[in-house]
Amino acid sequence: MKWLLDFKIKIADETTNARIGELITPHGKVNTPMFVPVATKATVKTLTTQELLDMGAEILIVNAFHLHLHPGTEIIKELGGLHKFMNWNRPLITDNGGFQATNSYLFHKIDETGIYFRSPHDGQIHQINPEEAIRYQNNLGADIIMALDECPAYTENYEYVKQSLDRTLSWAVESKKIHQNTNQVMFGIIQGGIFKDLRQRSVEAMRELDFAGYGLGGISVGEPDNLIYEITRYTANLLPKDKMRYLMGVGSPQIIFEAVEAGIDLFDSVFPTRSGRHGTVFSELGPINIKNAKYRQDSDPIDSNCTCFTCKNYSRAYLTHLIKHQEMLGMRLAALHNVHFILNLVRNIREAIEEGRFLEYKREVLSKYGKIL
Amino acid sequence: MKWLLDFKIKIADETTNARIGELITPHGKVNTPMFVPVATKATVKTLTTQELLDMGAEILIVNAFHLHLHPGTEIIKELGGLHKFMNWNRPLITDNGGFQATNSYLFHKIDETGIYFRSPHDGQIHQINPEEAIRYQNNLGADIIMALDECPAYTENYEYVKQSLDRTLSWAVESKKIHQNTNQVMFGIIQGGIFKDLRQRSVEAMRELDFAGYGLGGISVGEPDNLIYEITRYTANLLPKDKMRYLMGVGSPQIIFEAVEAGIDLFDSVFPTRSGRHGTVFSELGPINIKNAKYRQDSDPIDSNCTCFTCKNYSRAYLTHLIKHQEMLGMRLAALHNVHFILNLVRNIREAIEEGRFLEYKREVLSKYGKIL
Repeated sequence: MKWLLDFKIKIADETTNARIGELITPHGKVNTPMFVPVATKATVKTLTTQELLDMGAEILIVNAFHLHLHPGTEIIKELGGLHKFMNWNRPLITDNGGFQATNSYLFHKIDETGIYFRSPHDGQIHQINPEEAIRYQNNLGADIIMALDECPAYTENYEYVKQSLDRTLSWAVESKKIHQNTNQVMFGIIQGGIFKDLRQRSVEAMRELDFAGYGLGGISVGEPDNLIYEITRYTANLLPKDKMRYLMGVGSPQIIFEAVEAGIDLFDSVFPTRSGRHGTVFSELGPINIKNAKYRQDSDPIDSNCTCFTCKNYSRAYLTHLIKHQEMLGMRLAALHNVHFILNLVRNIREAIEEGRFLEYKREVLSKYGKIL
Repeated sequence: MKWLLDFKIKIADETTNARIGELITPHGKVNTPMFVPVATKATVKTLTTQELLDMGAEILIVNAFHLHLHPGTEIIKELGGLHKFMNWNRPLITDNGGFQATNSYLFHKIDETGIYFRSPHDGQIHQINPEEAIRYQNNLGADIIMALDECPAYTENYEYVKQSLDRTLSWAVESKKIHQNTNQVMFGIIQGGIFKDLRQRSVEAMRELDFAGYGLGGISVGEPDNLIYEITRYTANLLPKDKMRYLMGVGSPQIIFEAVEAGIDLFDSVFPTRSGRHGTVFSELGPINIKNAKYRQDSDPIDSNCTCFTCKNYSRAYLTHLIKHQEMLGMRLAALHNVHFILNLVRNIREAIEEGRFLEYKREVLSKYGKIL
């Protein structure tokens, strides 16, 4: 039943750094590049795991810190682990909780030993340090776990980001030492903000620790798109070709194309589900605000070319009606459509790379995208 | 494609007034007794119509007044009617809006000409009178529509209920006159509160109008269970045997058994979906408050004998976790289980009547039910 994690590059694009890969985990295979739906509290908001499977999702990411706060990772371990708890018997990643330091509602303070959070449930202060971060993730049993890192805000200066990187690197060493569970592999997270020398230092130190794969963190945290693309390209280029590259926290079509072109294998984002719940639905011509009065009498589906459950069964008019009334079915149908849209886009991207027409497909999609605005 | 509505009694129970019937509508067949899930704003909250079909739902009820407020019944007519709008190509009932007079948030005042409501959207005053109530329902195109009625509160005295009944009877006459759409049949609604002479007067006047079927309204509006049962039995007994009897607004297992025993064919309630969203889930031993701390580590499904999607895939521990975090997936899974539970109960009741063991089955179920509390 159990294999070690294995990542193989099957096709490398000739004109870009895009690549087709295959990740083998104890819970099955992931075709890359792949979009990773975010199940923060062990649920991709509004959707069942069966719906995610049906849409072609192959791997999910869950936040270990939120599950530590409630119901507790030991409880999930006793219940048979995270896969069983959330009814997802496929590959799974857990994040370490470091990213929650960017959440002013949760963040308390940070020092060399770890990050302090205030629980939204009871106001208690919790420290996440490498030992806790790995213990929680070992309890949960995801196939891929993340070394503890600090994700500095885009607005921090060079000195702060440098100091923060020192912490991230020392936490990575500790995280690796603590992790002993052979059914789970660990990825290190590259930080360094928008400063190339820090990104380079981060990659060098992380490569030395020889992680099973590398997360690219601290990207798309408020900086302009061009800087997102540049730092992603720069960082990806420094990473070993034979290891997975996971760009954390991006999910819009434009950034996905740039990331894949830079040689990224995985990317996750709450964007499709969150924007869906608020009435923004994706289409070939760009995002649509379904609450706009002009859709109230529109009998077309969100996107006539879309094959998702929502588009096959419901009109824009019905979705407008549901979302205006904050009916959960509306949020659910919109989230489902958006996740399907992104998974389908990434499936088409894989096909285009396989057929040697990645850049052509990118131009084709992006020339239409955004025209609705 | 279009038939007239046809209702046939197939089996009459020998020891009670319970009966097995078959209703034929322009959108297909309904086996009775049947539970009618409530889709107030054209959605059974959190669920898709496909899920309802899969669970064996055969007919839904929608509130015409809410759809008048938003998006407007003319818009739905132009979009091809309510069946198409909500993706439910099966039998459909619309309610007239009269019941909303019991909603203090919406109710403004009432007089001989109709009921005045304050829109929650813009504060505007809307009057519902027989002409409006029928026009809205004709626009929507449900198979069964309801004559306008007033539903007095349980706390109203004899004089008020008598006066109110006069209005309901004169509105029934008008409603019938206005309704000319041959694809839809109209039910009259019996009122009269807890006063038997008023219930009798109501039935006599309504029978004279010869409706296609009869709703029993103003029951389960705050009165004790015994009174619910007594008024239901009393009223059902006065109604013609060959016409449908629809008890409006009841959905708990105990009341369902009493209603079926009294000869009721249809009953609707928001109870399964509403209580599910708030974390109360049904089981053979009675309702369970899934937020109770004792379920936090419970790996069993809600009900081990249940065959619903929720029970086949998820533990009580996972549901507790989701509902505590107000995750929509939790509300969705709980609502789905509850609707399945009631539809399944009513399916078993039909089977028991067919096999001549209705009272036996009632005793069997109710002897266990409530033992969990």
